[in-house]
Formats: sequence, structure tokens, C-alpha cells
Amino acid sequence: MRRPAPPVRLALGLSYRGTAYDGWQSQPGGRTVQDRVEAALASFIDRPVRVTCAGRTDAGVHAVNQVVHLDAEELREPVSWVRGTNRFLPDDIAVQWMRPVEDAFDARRSARGRRYVYRLLESPVRPGLESGLVGWTFRSLDVEAMRAASRVLIGTHDFSALRSSECQAKTPVRTLRAIGVDRRGPWWRFEFDADAFLHHMVRNIMGCLLLIGSGARDPAWLEAVLRSGDRSRAAPTFAPDGLYFAGPYYDPAMALPERTSASDWLD
Amino acid sequence: MRRPAPPVRLALGLSYRGTAYDGWQSQPGGRTVQDRVEAALASFIDRPVRVTCAGRTDAGVHAVNQVVHLDAEELREPVSWVRGTNRFLPDDIAVQWMRPVEDAFDARRSARGRRYVYRLLESPVRPGLESGLVGWTFRSLDVEAMRAASRVLIGTHDFSALRSSECQAKTPVRTLRAIGVDRRGPWWRFEFDADAFLHHMVRNIMGCLLLIGSGARDPAWLEAVLRSGDRSRAAPTFAPDGLYFAGPYYDPAMALPERTSASDWLD
Repeated sequence: MRRPAPPVRLALGLSYRGTAYDGWQSQPGGRTVQDRVEAALASFIDRPVRVTCAGRTDAGVHAVNQVVHLDAEELREPVSWVRGTNRFLPDDIAVQWMRPVEDAFDARRSARGRRYVYRLLESPVRPGLESGLVGWTFRSLDVEAMRAASRVLIGTHDFSALRSSECQAKTPVRTLRAIGVDRRGPWWRFEFDADAFLHHMVRNIMGCLLLIGSGARDPAWLEAVLRSGDRSRAAPTFAPDGLYFAGPYYDPAMALPERTSASDWLD
Repeated sequence: MRRPAPPVRLALGLSYRGTAYDGWQSQPGGRTVQDRVEAALASFIDRPVRVTCAGRTDAGVHAVNQVVHLDAEELREPVSWVRGTNRFLPDDIAVQWMRPVEDAFDARRSARGRRYVYRLLESPVRPGLESGLVGWTFRSLDVEAMRAASRVLIGTHDFSALRSSECQAKTPVRTLRAIGVDRRGPWWRFEFDADAFLHHMVRNIMGCLLLIGSGARDPAWLEAVLRSGDRSRAAPTFAPDGLYFAGPYYDPAMALPERTSASDWLD
């Protein structure tokens, strides 16, 4: 009888459209991405599997390069893991790559940072074809006002005013490294780069930036909101539709893929 | 009592994601885009409405700028038509514009031509996030072979070999004005411009071009298929997922919009 191989830690990259799911995190009886991914892996290697992800996405939020890790004794080629697992996944979720990693690798804790992108349509008319994949505002937005406001968020701050009341993070302190605000025709692209994000943090920032962009608040208001630490002073949480988890990034020496085919959609 | 206004012919532009629908054309008990659009218009103006479209899309095929016409006695501003109808439409269908037109205008018969775009991902791994919105092939494609093959289709031909057996068009003769074949990274973009298209014509051409692009057939084969007039010699009908009806075009003097926000997705 063949001895089982020692367990090997594997990292997988996933892309998914969040529209049909109750977010990433497993729930009893819930329709979540994690449940689908673990069920597909279990079908492929014929035993129960648990995975740990780099970033828990909300209901309706998409992922371009969600990274997860798991331990496996099964010796199979990366391409087998990818195609084998994809056979058991619904169309709107797909493994994009697999890499063996060191035992110490943790998809969440090893991440040096994470990026989110928000795609927003500014138009008098709501989208049809693009519904669920873009946010929408009928208000004209001022790029300079939003850029000025976003600068006050850069750095290490207590983001209590911009996290969900249900946020379970131990500390509200995060380091926001960059916010990009750009437009091309009616299409806005907001990019957020931080060590990590609190629950609803990007969507709450989006809500605030749109109030400022449309002139309902001035840029200085956001600084006052941030300093107050008071969630009730911030804007309502903006729609998940246009929000994409672009993915985590790790020590470059690991050479884990930071892009998938879906990344091109966000450029 | 106010006399009703004389009927006015209206043109509307629609964008929709075809994934959830059994195509454009109304069916008894069917889940079609036409049924949803007519029901929404009827709810808005409180009477039954029939519309005529520029191009009947198949199940799963998307439209960036589908044009329809109807006659209405209701005097309302274009913006009211757009927003009022959209209130009664599902998220994945939306009116994008409305224009009063001359009585002789017919969305189908007045069109001078139509454009379709096919978006295709060439990748060893199937898409997740983009599922339903792009076609997919894991085979490497040769751009020059596909361009050479597509040139034999340009012009006025009997396209019997490339139409569905269920096609109801009176004649199989169509004039294909242009086929564009381009790639950017793993993303292919095929554009088709014709006076009109037969049932499954673009998807059948796509199937043939992919056989040629992957080297399974040489470019001369497509000319033989076309000349044969024999559907059974052509490739299988390719998936609808990446197919977009970019829209019809009319006499430029009418100044009807040829683009919507979704057009930017196809550039």
C-alpha cells in the first residue's frame, strides 16, 4: 500500500461574480461563494475541505483574484486542480490558478495589502446590460472635489466612522495607501489600496465621495466624519454592484499571480 | 373632454443582458425580452403595446442598442418615457433613449445595416466573473488565418450554409460589409457589419472561424462551405455568451443614437 504524501499547502486564485451569492463567508444554509468553492473542492478530491480567503466579500461584490489556501495530501498537477475543481463550480465562479506554497503561507495573514476597484456609471439613464456589474449615479460628479476629499483618508487612521456596525474586526485602525479617482467618458473608476479593509469600508467611502462629488457636501466634511469616529455621520453604504475585489498582494518573492483574465475589465 | 392627440411614432433604444431570457421574440408563456418590454410600456401608459425591433436576438445574446418603434397618442417628454418605462423593467433591461420619428420609420425595415460584436476569451482556464458575457476557447487562435477566411464572406452571398435550419427569412442572401478580427491580450473582438443577419448566422460564422483559427481547418475550407450551401458542412453553432447586438444604423439624417453606455464595453 502506498503511503499518503505529506500534506502540502496550496494557494488558489478565484474569480467570481457576486450577484447571485450571499457574499464570500460560509453560512448555515447560505448561498455563499465559500460554500460553493469548498463543495467543489470536496467533490474533486472526495473529502471535506475548508479554505481560508484573503478578503471576505459582501453579497453582490465580485472578485477578480480572490486568493485562498488549503492543505492537501493529494498529488495532482496545478492544471488538474484548476480544471477538476471548475467542473464542480457554477459558471459564475472559477479557479484561475493554483500554486504550491510554503507551509507558513496564509492567504489572509500573509497578505501585505489588498486592492478594490469600484466601477461607476454616471448617466441620466440607469444601465441594463451592465446591471449588477457597475454602480450608477445620475448626478454629475466633480473629480477634483473627490480627489481632494480622498486625500484626507490616506494614511493610518481609526476608520470607525466608515465601517459597518456589524464589523467584527478587532481594531478599526487601517492604513489606506492610495485612492485613485479617474474617469473615461461616463465611466468612473475608483481604486482603493490598503493593508486591509473593514466591513463595508469601501462602500461607505464611496457613499461619502459621491456626496462630495455631487456637491452635497464639501471635501472638508469627510475629514470631520473620519475624525468623529461616528458611523451615523457618514453617508449611506453605496450599492455593491460595481465593487470588485481586485485581489491581495504578497511578498513578490512568492510570485503569486496578481491578475486573472477578469483584471482586464478593471483597467 | 380633451381630444386625444394624433398618434406619434416613437423610436426607443434598449440595452439588455440576454442571459436570463429566451431571446427577443415574444412567445406564449415565454420569458422573452419583447414580452418584458411590452409589459413595461403597457404598465407605463396603461394600455396594451406592441413593438417592432431592429434585430431579433437569440437566447443568451445581449443588446447594446436594440431599437424598437411603437405608435403612441400619449404626449410625454422623452425623459418620461425612458424613466417611466424603466421603472417597470427588470434590472437587466433598460430603455436608453427615446426619439419621436416620422410615421414612415420602421425599426426593422428602415435599418440600413446592423452590427454585431463577439467578445471571446482565449485562455487555458474558463472565465468565472465574466461568465455569460464572453465566449471562451482554450485553443490558441491564429489571427491571420481567421482574417484570410473572413474575407471570402465579404460581399453579397447566399448564406444558406451558415444559417439555422429554423431560419424563417424569405431569402438566404445577405450582404456582409465587414468583419473585423482583433485581439488585445487574451481578449478577441470580432465585429460583423451586414445589411441584415440570418438566424444563427454570426454564431455559425464564429464556429467556422474558430476551427480555422485553431488550425483544424484551413481558410479555403470556409469558401467551400459557403459555396456548398450545405449547413451540415459548417461548424457547430458557437455559444451565445459573448455575442452582442451592437445595434442597427439608419439614414444619418435621422440622427438616432448609435451608442449607449454599454457600447464602451465593446470598444
